[in-house]
Amino acid sequence: MNYKIINGKLLVDEGHQIVIKEGDLYVRDKILSFIAPASEENFEVIDAKNKLIMPGLINMHSHAYMTLMRNYADDVEFSKWLFEGVMPVEDRLPAQAAYWSSLLAFSEMIRTGTTCFVDMHMYHRQSPLAAREAGMRGYIGRGLVGASLFEEGNPRFREALAEKEEFESDTLQFILSPHAIYSCGPGLLKEVAEQSRELGLLKQTHLSESITEVENCLKEHGKTPVEYLADLGFLDEQTILAHCVQMQGDDLDIIRNSGATIVTNPASNAKLGNGFAQAAEMVEKGINLCIGTDGAASNNTLNMFREMTLLSLIQKGIHHDPVSLPAETVVRAATVNAAKALGMKDRLGVIKEGAAADLIFLDLDTPSMFPANNILSSLCYSAGGSEVSTVMIDGKLVMRNRELLTIDMEKVYYEVNKAAETCL
Amino acid sequence: MNYKIINGKLLVDEGHQIVIKEGDLYVRDKILSFIAPASEENFEVIDAKNKLIMPGLINMHSHAYMTLMRNYADDVEFSKWLFEGVMPVEDRLPAQAAYWSSLLAFSEMIRTGTTCFVDMHMYHRQSPLAAREAGMRGYIGRGLVGASLFEEGNPRFREALAEKEEFESDTLQFILSPHAIYSCGPGLLKEVAEQSRELGLLKQTHLSESITEVENCLKEHGKTPVEYLADLGFLDEQTILAHCVQMQGDDLDIIRNSGATIVTNPASNAKLGNGFAQAAEMVEKGINLCIGTDGAASNNTLNMFREMTLLSLIQKGIHHDPVSLPAETVVRAATVNAAKALGMKDRLGVIKEGAAADLIFLDLDTPSMFPANNILSSLCYSAGGSEVSTVMIDGKLVMRNRELLTIDMEKVYYEVNKAAETCL
Repeated sequence: MNYKIINGKLLVDEGHQIVIKEGDLYVRDKILSFIAPASEENFEVIDAKNKLIMPGLINMHSHAYMTLMRNYADDVEFSKWLFEGVMPVEDRLPAQAAYWSSLLAFSEMIRTGTTCFVDMHMYHRQSPLAAREAGMRGYIGRGLVGASLFEEGNPRFREALAEKEEFESDTLQFILSPHAIYSCGPGLLKEVAEQSRELGLLKQTHLSESITEVENCLKEHGKTPVEYLADLGFLDEQTILAHCVQMQGDDLDIIRNSGATIVTNPASNAKLGNGFAQAAEMVEKGINLCIGTDGAASNNTLNMFREMTLLSLIQKGIHHDPVSLPAETVVRAATVNAAKALGMKDRLGVIKEGAAADLIFLDLDTPSMFPANNILSSLCYSAGGSEVSTVMIDGKLVMRNRELLTIDMEKVYYEVNKAAETCL
Repeated sequence: MNYKIINGKLLVDEGHQIVIKEGDLYVRDKILSFIAPASEENFEVIDAKNKLIMPGLINMHSHAYMTLMRNYADDVEFSKWLFEGVMPVEDRLPAQAAYWSSLLAFSEMIRTGTTCFVDMHMYHRQSPLAAREAGMRGYIGRGLVGASLFEEGNPRFREALAEKEEFESDTLQFILSPHAIYSCGPGLLKEVAEQSRELGLLKQTHLSESITEVENCLKEHGKTPVEYLADLGFLDEQTILAHCVQMQGDDLDIIRNSGATIVTNPASNAKLGNGFAQAAEMVEKGINLCIGTDGAASNNTLNMFREMTLLSLIQKGIHHDPVSLPAETVVRAATVNAAKALGMKDRLGVIKEGAAADLIFLDLDTPSMFPANNILSSLCYSAGGSEVSTVMIDGKLVMRNRELLTIDMEKVYYEVNKAAETCL
């Protein structure tokens, strides 16, 4: 289906600044265009009066399968959360439950304006299966652990490649996902770096999330986690580093020089007691900063609007500086910076001639957006996600006027509830 | 109208813990009861299947008239925000605009589950007029400044008393509201303390919001703002102190011993670069801690659910402690603690035999609340406010199934827009 979107206000990133423009926007063969086609015969008209149309948000770090564990293990110490809360559930959870849990995640993402997610999952085939069903754009990785990708008895890398083989499409891409330096040996991390180059795949890992991780790494290797990864040849422009809360010494410079991206997860980092990332310093250094929600077991929602607010407010509070991480910088982190990290500059995260049609429509006539004194500010400081009324991914409507078109919520609620009752 | 609410889950604070109960809840003559009346003839049945019914949230610090300035002066230094942003607008704003701006505030409060607010306003009659129209429960104060309540040419205290005379009712109460120690002389502050005792009125003020305020007070009086107010005889159980971000020395002990309440405003404090209040320490000391949004010019929303999340996450992050300010403590701060501060213990902020019927209904079948592993956690960590579907204040429905029943939003948008175009 082709669309002609009329009467809307368009959020357009012109590189030096983000501006609001008016005018018709066409979606032709899943691609955005400002140029009227020769014939508009096959174009459905969408009237976007009183709507802001902007690029869909990109959630750069998530674990969709964990959504079942939302609000399950809160207000407890980190080790209790992980070893008595999350991990025993993961052992009990049937793969099918991860599928329904992922669909629940995508329903929440779509309803709050996320059109693309980066995932690290633990259940073969379930995340891409659910993402394909929901019509989400995803960069999906099977979590890898152990000493080597090619160990006997460790099927994860094989499964990761099989998923790529089965599911790779215009909207689903795959990303090598070693879990962390404490769950992966140096051999495996080197192999991932090699495979990344050979296969032309992105790679992601959790890094410097907690003080304990950094202390242990210093003790064991005499290096910070960042130095350790750098020395293994892991850091380059194809690398996405989730968290980076505990940065020491030259860590930020090493990351900046490598061209790697940092994904900050303010809610999760605060909630688990890991603290606040130096996000403003990362931006000042010229590091490509993106935003993620992490999983629902540590956030406890997958709402990028809430995450944008948190990111900016926390930085302003830490630095006693109301100018720190302004709205425009934060909106860029959730859109164009993410596209850059994914190798999709000018194709994702923007409304631009030739970009993919990943769009969200927000109601401007809703209290939190009103009056529209500064729309960029409202996206960062007052929007809560529920202003999103219509969502298009890769040219396909997945929500229209708050009605989800690709996900049967009654079925999702039924199945997630059943799994929660059995496994939690 | 009397109501019988069936099939809902009720959030009941039993003092030692908050629990979820099932059972019918009656609203008879604006009062809650679990006891079936002799005849249910005049009771309308509300089916609350898949809903959580809880006491309405109490926003303990707001400036409803400022909602017009939402997203108006962001990402600028504090003095620029105040002297070039907010204050010139206040000078230009006609009183009528404050009325519409307040109605916009109440529409947002109701939609996000706030049933009662404490206000400090600047436009004679407009806040109570709008609150009465919207059916909000309010504790409203005309901002007081100057050397004395009884100065010639300063009509504010007279106006405050006239408002009380005109508007006082079951739902609208009045609160003496000297603006701050830097805008009120010591004589006025003493007079307010006397009038508070004589008239039996609560009093509120902004206190220790910024480092500059504390430094200036130390320079001028050789005391912290808290010590200064204590020495003026201002602090007692009738006192509500907004902000208290910059606490020094014995400040917290002085407040605890006085019985005064602190209202923390995490979004506003962070956003204006004032920092993070020591909220966890306040609770540990036994201070009655409540939550406010402050005005929309510094938040930039009036959503108590967002404020609860921020409060808890920021404290966990600061203290590197996932156990800091747990969900139950935060929910109490937004309900029963507020009722206590307002002298309405057991009558507001609780579902209890004989309490006022200020209730909110939340959809449990919505992604952010699902699965319902821990409802208290969801209120603090995953709810965003849009889960609120129905709101009752003083036994009257003001929103039903997301439809506002007391506020004509089209008119509000039209009038606020007109005022914004003229004054901003």
